[in-house]
Amino acid sequence: MTSCHNYESLPAARRVAIFGGTHGNEMSGVTLVNQWIKNETEIQRPGFQIKPFITNPRAVEKCTRYIDTDLNRAFTTENLSAEKSEDLPYEVRRAQEINRLFGPKGSQEAYDVIFDLHNTTSNMGGTLILESSKDDCNLQMVHYVQNALIPMSCSVLLTEHPTLKYAASRSVAKHAVGVEVGPQPHGTIRGDVLFTMKKIVKHALDFIQLFNEGKEFSPCTVDVYRLTESVDYPRDKDGNISAVIHTDLQDRDWQALNPGDPMFLTFDGRTIPYEGDSTVYPTFINEAAYYEKQQAFVITRKETLTVKGIRVSQA
Amino acid sequence: MTSCHNYESLPAARRVAIFGGTHGNEMSGVTLVNQWIKNETEIQRPGFQIKPFITNPRAVEKCTRYIDTDLNRAFTTENLSAEKSEDLPYEVRRAQEINRLFGPKGSQEAYDVIFDLHNTTSNMGGTLILESSKDDCNLQMVHYVQNALIPMSCSVLLTEHPTLKYAASRSVAKHAVGVEVGPQPHGTIRGDVLFTMKKIVKHALDFIQLFNEGKEFSPCTVDVYRLTESVDYPRDKDGNISAVIHTDLQDRDWQALNPGDPMFLTFDGRTIPYEGDSTVYPTFINEAAYYEKQQAFVITRKETLTVKGIRVSQA
Repeated sequence: MTSCHNYESLPAARRVAIFGGTHGNEMSGVTLVNQWIKNETEIQRPGFQIKPFITNPRAVEKCTRYIDTDLNRAFTTENLSAEKSEDLPYEVRRAQEINRLFGPKGSQEAYDVIFDLHNTTSNMGGTLILESSKDDCNLQMVHYVQNALIPMSCSVLLTEHPTLKYAASRSVAKHAVGVEVGPQPHGTIRGDVLFTMKKIVKHALDFIQLFNEGKEFSPCTVDVYRLTESVDYPRDKDGNISAVIHTDLQDRDWQALNPGDPMFLTFDGRTIPYEGDSTVYPTFINEAAYYEKQQAFVITRKETLTVKGIRVSQA
Repeated sequence: MTSCHNYESLPAARRVAIFGGTHGNEMSGVTLVNQWIKNETEIQRPGFQIKPFITNPRAVEKCTRYIDTDLNRAFTTENLSAEKSEDLPYEVRRAQEINRLFGPKGSQEAYDVIFDLHNTTSNMGGTLILESSKDDCNLQMVHYVQNALIPMSCSVLLTEHPTLKYAASRSVAKHAVGVEVGPQPHGTIRGDVLFTMKKIVKHALDFIQLFNEGKEFSPCTVDVYRLTESVDYPRDKDGNISAVIHTDLQDRDWQALNPGDPMFLTFDGRTIPYEGDSTVYPTFINEAAYYEKQQAFVITRKETLTVKGIRVSQA
């Protein structure tokens, strides 16, 4: 039984991109996208275009996160509208170019879906990162992918936050999907991580194909972890880190952190507990690239979203 | 019962250095040495000097392995005797400076012992790296540290090999000891890894103190893993990696790899087995920094060394 209120008719997705190398040292995404550029067979689907693309080739060549500035924070209105100049940081120029190729961001001409492939040193497993709790198309995709991956779990991080949401490469598309898989040290490729990432992309492309071909997806619910806070390391008076992630918290991404639970461990062995007033779910715990962002982990809260059914609109 | 043949009388160790930041992104060593520079209490011992020292401060500042070239391969006779010049790579100039401060390498004026603190992305646990099977002093130290760490294990990698031994920073000292602890992604600090490293250094300093104070160490045996071979990733005709460490081998440093066991996994899912003719013990499996050295892992063979007893010589 379906009612009009519970269903949306949405246009078919005709142009999909898969980004790798937004951070040049996150090697599962770089490796997969480079393979797919050479041989697209594995990602080809009938009825729509899928474009594998290395977003930060200079950073990939150097196997570093970025050259001048973090590309995955560079897609701001200010940057994208800045006058073209060789004086701009490399990644800002690159963001403008990507916006021309796959955007413009926020326009009808933009790509329908962009998957941006990332790795993390955190023990997050397979994770899908969404920017909006209102995007039923993305949420239905997530629901499909989660079911297809069983018994493997795939968490959903919702970055819909007034200040913590960032101007990501994928934000150029109408539907932005971050694919984050860890733990994998930057600069390495782990088989388990690479094959998990490949599976997530496969199922997501299957979903788009089924949707385009007319399959109806019923209303459903999706459990998400909503980003609510960023937590920095304890620091001394000179600003140097004075404690590490507590060994009881390390590697426990997505697990409950209760008031009083160990959070940090100072170098002289003192435990600093979590002093919030309710249970939270930390993630991005001890991500290498976030030391410079002064972030030891992020705090999320569990939420269940109600998702409308979707079907393709007849053009 | 002791016989003269089984004992050596050796001079007391009066000058010991602890190096951190030979690779600027290996953060346990960097962090510990920086702490000890600020406050030496934890590493002070009566009767000898202990000098904590950051070997590659520019790489530490940038949180990168090196600036121009790998410092831990730079201590060659050629580099150390090169005419001083600003045109030399930064790390070669730095190697010359370190050689002046702690060497000269191979001379009577050199420091007695240098511990060089390293981290690896490989699942090696606590590891001591020695360059010589004839250095009874180092081997007795290893034996002491291994016993003190029980129930934690601490493997010994012996790099005594005609071509695979390298010109390490610590090679400036009379007794060179590499302390390698993992797994820790470069650029991060893991509490478990940092505290393991701290324990190893503590026990090693205790050993030196006891030795200097006249404690006799009986003849013993030490099991070591002797480095015998470096294994590269499979590559395509363009030289690009075409397979990852097999998921059955990943994280199994120091465990037996038998002929026929899975070794690599190609991107299309094919297993490449180990085709040697006997059991070996891989380590440095999937170390991030060794991709550029074309090394997927190294092969070692187990060996039991017979170690003479040692006592301090009366000056």
